[in-house]
This record gives sequence, C-alpha cells and structure tokens, in this order.
Amino acid sequence: MNRQELFEQIKKKKSFLCVGLDSDINKIPKHLLDCEDPVFSFNKAIIDATLPYTVAYKPNIAFYESRGSKGWDSLEKTINYLNEKAPEVFTIADAKRGDIGNTSKLYAKAFFENMNFDAITVAPYMGEDSVSPFLEYKSKWVILLALTSNKGASDFQLYRRDVGEALNRLGIRSVLPKRLFERVILTSQQWGYVENMMYVVGATKSDYFIKVRQHAPYHFLLVPGIGAQGGSLEEVAKHGMNNQCGLLVNSSRGIIFASDGADFAEVAAEKAREVKDQMEGLLKEKGLV
Amino acid sequence: MNRQELFEQIKKKKSFLCVGLDSDINKIPKHLLDCEDPVFSFNKAIIDATLPYTVAYKPNIAFYESRGSKGWDSLEKTINYLNEKAPEVFTIADAKRGDIGNTSKLYAKAFFENMNFDAITVAPYMGEDSVSPFLEYKSKWVILLALTSNKGASDFQLYRRDVGEALNRLGIRSVLPKRLFERVILTSQQWGYVENMMYVVGATKSDYFIKVRQHAPYHFLLVPGIGAQGGSLEEVAKHGMNNQCGLLVNSSRGIIFASDGADFAEVAAEKAREVKDQMEGLLKEKGLV
Repeated sequence: MNRQELFEQIKKKKSFLCVGLDSDINKIPKHLLDCEDPVFSFNKAIIDATLPYTVAYKPNIAFYESRGSKGWDSLEKTINYLNEKAPEVFTIADAKRGDIGNTSKLYAKAFFENMNFDAITVAPYMGEDSVSPFLEYKSKWVILLALTSNKGASDFQLYRRDVGEALNRLGIRSVLPKRLFERVILTSQQWGYVENMMYVVGATKSDYFIKVRQHAPYHFLLVPGIGAQGGSLEEVAKHGMNNQCGLLVNSSRGIIFASDGADFAEVAAEKAREVKDQMEGLLKEKGLV
Repeated sequence: MNRQELFEQIKKKKSFLCVGLDSDINKIPKHLLDCEDPVFSFNKAIIDATLPYTVAYKPNIAFYESRGSKGWDSLEKTINYLNEKAPEVFTIADAKRGDIGNTSKLYAKAFFENMNFDAITVAPYMGEDSVSPFLEYKSKWVILLALTSNKGASDFQLYRRDVGEALNRLGIRSVLPKRLFERVILTSQQWGYVENMMYVVGATKSDYFIKVRQHAPYHFLLVPGIGAQGGSLEEVAKHGMNNQCGLLVNSSRGIIFASDGADFAEVAAEKAREVKDQMEGLLKEKGLV
C-alpha cells in the first residue's frame, strides 16, 4: 500500500486508528478456549467488529511466537484473513527485528513474502545494512523504532547526557548535539523515504513530537502508548498531525480486552468507535475531512 | 548453565567455539530435501559431527522464522535434540529481540521456558525494561548487542561524531564522551551482572576490544564475524581473552556449509576441529589449559 492509499483510507473512515492484536491467550475470553484456534477466533471477531473504525491492524509477534508453531499458525491465519476480508487496511507486523544484511533479508521474506504484511517494525541499532533489505520491497514499509513509549526509552534513545555534562562544565550550552533518536530519524532518511519508511514515536513522549516533526515533517508516525500507557491523543494530534494526517495511533489492550465476556467483540467495537469519534474531531479541526 | 560450568566445558574441550546453525534450507545439501524435516536432519548431522570441538550452538532464528510454522518445528526439534543429546553445551537463540516489558516477558517465555535455551541475544535500543524480563530467569543469559560485526554498526553504535565535531571546533579533544556501544556496556551493568549477561562484540571490530575489556573485564563476549566476515581469531584472543577465557567465538557458514555433498557433516567436523586446534593453542598461551 502506498502513502496516498493510506491517506484515502483515513479520510474515508475518518480515523487513524491502528488496533494492536496483542492477543495473549491468557487474556482472551475463556469461552473461546474451546475453539480449534482460540487466538484466531478471537482476532477474527475483533477484526469483524472494529473494521469500520480502523485503518490498520498490528499484531505484536511476541504474543504468537511465545506459543511456538501453534502461535505461528494463528498469526498466518490472521494475516490471511485480513488480506482477504479487508485488503484495504494497512497491516503491520510488530516484530522489532533487525540483523546483519543476509539475515534481515530472511526476516523480510518471512513478513513481506510469506505473510504479505504491508509493514514491519525494525530496531535501528545495527544500522543501514540491517534495515535496507526490508526497503527493497515495492509498496512495503519499514517502521523504524525512533522514540519508544516505555520507560527504558530514556536509557539510550535520549543519549547525550555525558556530552551535555561535559559541555556544561565548560559553560557551553548552545552546541548540544542531537539525541540518538534524532540521529536515527535523520540518518535513516538516507536509506528510505516518505513512501517506504515511518517512525515509531511513543504517545508518552509528546514533548518530543515537535522535534520529530522538525526532522521528519512528511513521514507517517506509528504512535503507541495511548490508553493503558497514559499518552494523550490530543497532544499527539496537536504536535504530530501533518497535511496527510501522518499518524497511525495504536491502541491494543484498551480495545481488544475491554470486556472478557461473551460481548467482547461488541465492547471492542464500542471502544474503537469512541477513539474514532475523537479522531474524526481532530481530523476536522485540521481540515482533512 | 552458570559461568563456571561454561568455563569447565571450555577447558575440557579446549575450545571456545560456537557453531552458528544458520541452516538456510536453500543452502543445505540437496540430498537432504527428501527427509521429512530437512533442516532438522541437517542440524542433527552437524551437531553429531561437531560436538567434540564445540561448546555452544547458536541457531539464528531468522532462518527458521522465514519458513513459518514448519521452521518453528525444525527449531524446536533442534533445541530439544541439543538439550537431550548434549545438555552440557551452551545454547543461544540468536533472536535479537527486545520490546516493552510485558512483551519482552513473552519472548523470554518463548525461548527460555518453551524451548529451554540457555541464552538469547537482545537488542538494547529500548533500554532497561525491554531487557530485564530476560534477566529474571535463573541460570539463563542475556547476550546484549554492543558492537556488531556488520558495516552498519558504525551508523549508531559508534555515535559521538557530532559531539566530536562540535568539540573539535572548540579546540577541545580531551573530554570526548563515550560512544553508544560503550554506554550500552556500562549502563547495562546496572541491570545484570557477569553471571547473567554477555555482550556481542564483532570480530571485525578488534580495535575496540581493548575498550570493551576496560569496561567489561570479566564478562563473556559472544564474537561473530570470523571466517566469512573477515575477523581474526588471534586478534580477538589477544585483546579479548580473560582468565576465564571470556570468549565464545562463533563460526557459521565457514563450518556448516563447508561442503554441500554427502560428506557435509565430516567436512564440517574437520573445519570445526581446525578452529578448535587454533583455539587450543590460544588457550595454552594464556595458561588456561
């Protein structure tokens, strides 16, 4: 899927919601455990119910991999279902992969060829040759981790403290260099471009959205961290939305596990609609719908 | 497995060789393709042949994941075979995972509980809470990416260039801050310790081994990059070996794909023995065997 098609979807559904299929078998409704493939049955029901309000789905691969080859079966069935039932939605393998070139090539094969996802999340630590094999696929996307939503994000992604201290000791404040996440965003624009690369920027880091948009004004951003993790959708839209929306905001637990009863899919749909209504308002404010 | 047990194995086998089971189905001998599970048959033969010269095995997960649930079956059979046939060897899932805490916990479950690997490689970009779930397992190891063997390692792992330039402009050279890989090594020692954490340091980066050993004198290092990637075993041992050896040096393609004929396992054994003989010499020089 290309950027224009994604933007068309957003305008059509008046939503930039991505539903995270973090379908932990220990958290899905108990009555589904009698199904042949409980996780796929859960995903199918969630997809059917939330599709009117959703432009993207993002299974986090850990929830499947932790169940071994059975989990892979559930994942393959889920992506096949999405590709058949709703070829217009954007699909993201939240895998956070990245390895030396010949190995990243195999991860690309797994997620882009075998399973036909539109996008994969990739960790930048190993640099260009760990990312470029994913960029060789036409109409597929790399979503590079830039500034994640978790506490540990500050350990390395904000790295420049030693420098700051060294310079402060010298009474110099104005030449502070870029933080690591800024360097990731700037350097990686030499590898890919707005049509095949997005960045992960956590909703919990809204202070940094202005900086992110200075460096990447046109790129789409995948934004986790609203809901359970505490980020604000208004703040994200205020600092992060661009003229093609430029945002996919993810919600996982807040939607898919809103009820664990027989009504789980209906309640998930309600929650997704609430988020979509809020998004519609924000898109209207920006004059995009 | 704890550090002392690993060191005992190294002394007993006079080797610190790790064989990388990067068992690409397109590269294994063609006559194996008739087997029920060609990749497992290949791995089993390689393990049986190289076991006398090898203290660790390291399947890179991409080679399995790229084959979907069939690949996971091959991986599960391989780790089960290793745990039964050779419980004394150290097993490493080269997965380069890392995600927010509740998700990393599931990756830990996948590789430490379901498959009972001794160790997993982890990418540090997301910081402490992405790594600590792996450290909660007794006698299991995190092998954190520090300085990888690929070209892209210089994109971020050596990051301090902007700083260096800014300081150079000011005529100051002495306060240069640490590079990112150094910071990863130093910061992560607040999360784990020598009994549950190792670092990946590429053999192609032997100039930096002295720096690595300044920061982590006692830790084991997992060293990829000899053989096909061009690193030198002598250089690695010269700068990296400590009083408990402290090294696991990996070779993959140079051993497992040394022949693609009916004699592939014998030739792999020969190649492994050659590396082991060289390692024995280096261990003797150091007075460890």
